[in-house]
Amino acid sequence: MDTVKILIDTKGADNGEAVMIKGAQGVLEKFEDISVVLAGDRELLASECQKVGMPLDRIEILDAKGEITNYDNPAEALFKKTDSSMLTGLKALGEREDIFGMISAGNTGVLLSGALRYAASADRVRPALAAVLPCSDGGFTCLVDTGATIDCTPQMLHHFALLGSDFMRRTYGIDSPRVGLLSNGSESSKGNKLVKETYPVLEADENICFVGNVEGNTAFSGVCDVLVCDGFAGNQVLKVTEGTATRIITDIMKYAHREGSDEIKKLAMHLMGIYDIGSLGGGIILGCAKPIIKTRGNAKESAVINTAEMLLNMAHNKSVFDKSRNKI
Amino acid sequence: MDTVKILIDTKGADNGEAVMIKGAQGVLEKFEDISVVLAGDRELLASECQKVGMPLDRIEILDAKGEITNYDNPAEALFKKTDSSMLTGLKALGEREDIFGMISAGNTGVLLSGALRYAASADRVRPALAAVLPCSDGGFTCLVDTGATIDCTPQMLHHFALLGSDFMRRTYGIDSPRVGLLSNGSESSKGNKLVKETYPVLEADENICFVGNVEGNTAFSGVCDVLVCDGFAGNQVLKVTEGTATRIITDIMKYAHREGSDEIKKLAMHLMGIYDIGSLGGGIILGCAKPIIKTRGNAKESAVINTAEMLLNMAHNKSVFDKSRNKI
Repeated sequence: MDTVKILIDTKGADNGEAVMIKGAQGVLEKFEDISVVLAGDRELLASECQKVGMPLDRIEILDAKGEITNYDNPAEALFKKTDSSMLTGLKALGEREDIFGMISAGNTGVLLSGALRYAASADRVRPALAAVLPCSDGGFTCLVDTGATIDCTPQMLHHFALLGSDFMRRTYGIDSPRVGLLSNGSESSKGNKLVKETYPVLEADENICFVGNVEGNTAFSGVCDVLVCDGFAGNQVLKVTEGTATRIITDIMKYAHREGSDEIKKLAMHLMGIYDIGSLGGGIILGCAKPIIKTRGNAKESAVINTAEMLLNMAHNKSVFDKSRNKI
Repeated sequence: MDTVKILIDTKGADNGEAVMIKGAQGVLEKFEDISVVLAGDRELLASECQKVGMPLDRIEILDAKGEITNYDNPAEALFKKTDSSMLTGLKALGEREDIFGMISAGNTGVLLSGALRYAASADRVRPALAAVLPCSDGGFTCLVDTGATIDCTPQMLHHFALLGSDFMRRTYGIDSPRVGLLSNGSESSKGNKLVKETYPVLEADENICFVGNVEGNTAFSGVCDVLVCDGFAGNQVLKVTEGTATRIITDIMKYAHREGSDEIKKLAMHLMGIYDIGSLGGGIILGCAKPIIKTRGNAKESAVINTAEMLLNMAHNKSVFDKSRNKI
């Protein structure tokens, strides 16, 4: 069995290194065919890994004392903080053939800029940030962009369509991923200026299986495999979906407590498993030479494990998620 | 007790006149202090109202044989279809002092243009489309714009803030409604070009209680009374909220059926009552001389009743919704 080597940036998470180290431990326990490279403070990492009895033969430590914070400006940090765990990690990812992909919970802006600097694809395009969301038909839709580029041009949206299609093809084995364009109506005449200008561009490209405009209420019903939009709209779609799901599940938990119903508590736990966007995988940086996944700043151990599984499946070119997981 | 006269456009709904007539019947049964003006085909309406035994002394029929469809172009329809129930209704609303407000399930574009033509406010501003959404803290937030103006300028967003504040002040009795600006991050530096340009405009207006940028995941947690955005973003927020809620509730119903659990079915019905955006009220047209409410094309009878209640409460200047309705 070939081992897949994954680099984990241990700094930059809201709650410090602890959750990333615990995540790495979980990854090594769950997946025998993964080995990890931990980027961070060597002394701290060595001592922590030993303390909890992690398999040291499957761990490599990449010493990096510096840290990128959420207050860092991407353009500045990129050149001043090269000793940070994030940039040291990205540099190793770009240079070393043995590392397959990377996970970081740190500053998204620096991660995107760093990805372009150290691990750009051959055509050096600006990376996009995607999210894979579960659909009501049991499948998944790749939403791109979710916030890497806030103000976009039609050419950027065209590029997102190609990146998303490529991702769904390689990761989910979908030969001809259906691409939808997020709009305020399904008719071709609907949309803001950007959407109206992008429509004919997507329609004209024979390499894209364009299914037209898709509205927010049917976006995740299985009508498309890739949903394209600017980073501002994508951010709204992602956060509103999460906010609504979290709120309804919280409501159900309250209801269960009040009624003292174990049956409803069980239902709430079940729903949390399906709609826990935080642990589903986080943002996937598309358009680089290698896969890079951004977990939330407040990522849980499970998020690290799920994203590692995503990378493992990409390496093995099989479906990222078990579809049955995503069904009620 | 003063009677409030409400005009109901009986044409333009997806399923024909039946649902609007049933809705009118429900309104008259539920609210003793409402009388209705039904705009539509006189013969049909007279016969239907008599057939179901509606109180004819509280019904006036405004004869209008023409109909606006969803395929009508607003600019064209506005001048060619003046015999339609919608435009005949709007004309009466604008001209007659005894009619307080209007409900229509028809073409939104024509309704907005018609509202400006026949029932404009003194300053003849372009009307905005708002939605009042329930918050997790038991209150409500007015989202504006939800699709009347898809591409906006900072001046338009400023205007939405004033219209939304005025609506929340008059309808909910909130002295100083808190206005949030929808963005992709809560920091003042976040936003697309439009949001970044709008921020200082809202901040500078002393008549607005501006609370800064608000993200999609916390938008309906009670952090603001008015949430301002362009019509494209607002449409996404509204439809994604609705899509996510509908989907989770459908999931719960499936789960209840499979487990044969009456307890969970009861929970699902309860959630449907809170999150049924379709019957909660529909779009409110702000910025006209009189209140106009657009219900969904596929509106149910309950939507007509709820919107009539909203108009009644506006007339009496008390809170539109009972807050306890909105709690789990």
